[in-house]
Amino acid sequence: MTRDSIQTIFRTLAVTGLALATVGATVAEPLPSWHEGPAKVAITTFVARVTQEGSPDFVPPMERVAVFDNDGTLWAEQPLYVQAFFIFDRVQALAPQHPQWRTEEPFASVLRGDTQAALAGGEPALLELAMATHAGMTTDEFATVVSAWIATARHPQTGRLYTEMVYQPMLELLAYLRAHDFTTFIVSGGGVEFMRPWAERVYGIPPEQVIGSTIKTKFELRDGKPALVRLPELDFVDDKEGKPVAINRHLGRRPLAAFGNSDGDLQMLQWTAAGNGPRFCLYVHHDDAAREWAYDRDSRVGRLAQGLDEAQARGWTIVSMERDWRTIYPSVQR
Amino acid sequence: MTRDSIQTIFRTLAVTGLALATVGATVAEPLPSWHEGPAKVAITTFVARVTQEGSPDFVPPMERVAVFDNDGTLWAEQPLYVQAFFIFDRVQALAPQHPQWRTEEPFASVLRGDTQAALAGGEPALLELAMATHAGMTTDEFATVVSAWIATARHPQTGRLYTEMVYQPMLELLAYLRAHDFTTFIVSGGGVEFMRPWAERVYGIPPEQVIGSTIKTKFELRDGKPALVRLPELDFVDDKEGKPVAINRHLGRRPLAAFGNSDGDLQMLQWTAAGNGPRFCLYVHHDDAAREWAYDRDSRVGRLAQGLDEAQARGWTIVSMERDWRTIYPSVQR
Repeated sequence: MTRDSIQTIFRTLAVTGLALATVGATVAEPLPSWHEGPAKVAITTFVARVTQEGSPDFVPPMERVAVFDNDGTLWAEQPLYVQAFFIFDRVQALAPQHPQWRTEEPFASVLRGDTQAALAGGEPALLELAMATHAGMTTDEFATVVSAWIATARHPQTGRLYTEMVYQPMLELLAYLRAHDFTTFIVSGGGVEFMRPWAERVYGIPPEQVIGSTIKTKFELRDGKPALVRLPELDFVDDKEGKPVAINRHLGRRPLAAFGNSDGDLQMLQWTAAGNGPRFCLYVHHDDAAREWAYDRDSRVGRLAQGLDEAQARGWTIVSMERDWRTIYPSVQR
Repeated sequence: MTRDSIQTIFRTLAVTGLALATVGATVAEPLPSWHEGPAKVAITTFVARVTQEGSPDFVPPMERVAVFDNDGTLWAEQPLYVQAFFIFDRVQALAPQHPQWRTEEPFASVLRGDTQAALAGGEPALLELAMATHAGMTTDEFATVVSAWIATARHPQTGRLYTEMVYQPMLELLAYLRAHDFTTFIVSGGGVEFMRPWAERVYGIPPEQVIGSTIKTKFELRDGKPALVRLPELDFVDDKEGKPVAINRHLGRRPLAAFGNSDGDLQMLQWTAAGNGPRFCLYVHHDDAAREWAYDRDSRVGRLAQGLDEAQARGWTIVSMERDWRTIYPSVQR
């Protein structure tokens, strides 16, 4: 049986199955955590438009690529990126092997628990902390460290596991798009090897569909056994202008839809919007101080200023977390 | 209908369909261009072993990743890499805009048709030619140039289109693996944007499953319209130690099977072989002077020396093009 004939049967069945499903009265409404409103309508209208066979706007499944920023788009990023908390915890864990850190900044501030002071040095300080905690081990070892940390580390304010601070409406959106034969990619400024160990379990996004920032790695034989060793050197920063560059390098296709929440995602949305035919761009706007956080133009983390202006001017979809989302986080059973 | 339930139906159908198909007497033999022999047996035995549900060696479909070198593994690479011929043709085409090339090496030699002299400068000369012909345009423009060239350019000795110099047995192998739910990736030292415009049509491999060498690109707004501009600067060379690095960066998974033909593929095969559980490594050995070319240890292009020793020592599969393949190239209808 050829792949083509299997696909034909599959499609026929899927169509039949879907047709049967609509006969019953119990058809699940898509995107249940989204209020009926302009954002939800924009999403479902767009998906209907590009998936309707025979329509002039029909897009074949292979080209249905949707790209998602991670921090602030799929999970919370306040008061600091989750990866920053990971870095601080790793500094604590590794401190016994680095006695000089007690007096050396920015490490000393982290060890005193004063993360504000540690970050006073800005990006160079954060980079130094990242390199000291993310390099010097194999890729396999790093994945083990990340998996162990993410399984237990909790948010300082909510007490939730970080993986419980993903946005329920966005989980539904990912599933909804995949049910319509979209492939969903993460395109994040975060480290790719920080996300891959848990992205499949939490988002249903397998490792090869996670694009992120990278540090250099080196192939070497250790006692005759090949290893990839992580070097303390930045390879690529997947943010701002870097996002379309990374998408092109990784995918060689322009996305059909792009989802972000900050100015760091603007170029990715611009690149997506500039494609031929229908495209969909969406910003998640953090305007829900009661249930999450409210921030945009003046935030140090996830600043959204130019992007907000451009989204308004171009009619991109802007999601109000307060008005468009029934719930923020998944319900957690303990 | 959820994606999971669709997949369940799909799998059930596929299994049933396959079972029915084996009842008939007209079941197509897999890999028809492969002689019955040790290489074919090794391939089919491995695939059976990792795809048999309930077997201790069963590998779930998501993890069935097969990586293929391109030059010399999927298509011919003699007397020079196809991309080198592309470069020479581009130098000719662009020469009117660069009058200084008439006297400037290595361009002058190319323009005289003396490619041997042009390549006397070794890798730096080839790199200079590559940058002069591959950069200074947008990614979209470059894809158009490649597509136009590959549609008409012919091999200097066989007169075939280059895309007709792919190996028929390898096309069957790609299809065979995909029919068993493998994902097939190209991991080539060639330029990723040189391969993507035709890899899907010729190999059935979509752009996001092509990994290769890259030059830097820059996102910019041209008259308000976003563009990715190709810069004359190497970004990453996807060869030797670079192959496992690129596989890890792109996929975040270790391949289950790896296919190459030269020492440039050795680290990719080593990295694959070092994974837990069953793995499959194969070298295509060019030993067919009558139908293709015969070369290994002393070849300038596609040298296979250390890799051949290691393959023999470790019992990797070595394909003799002469003895294992009934045909080399696809039959072409003109």
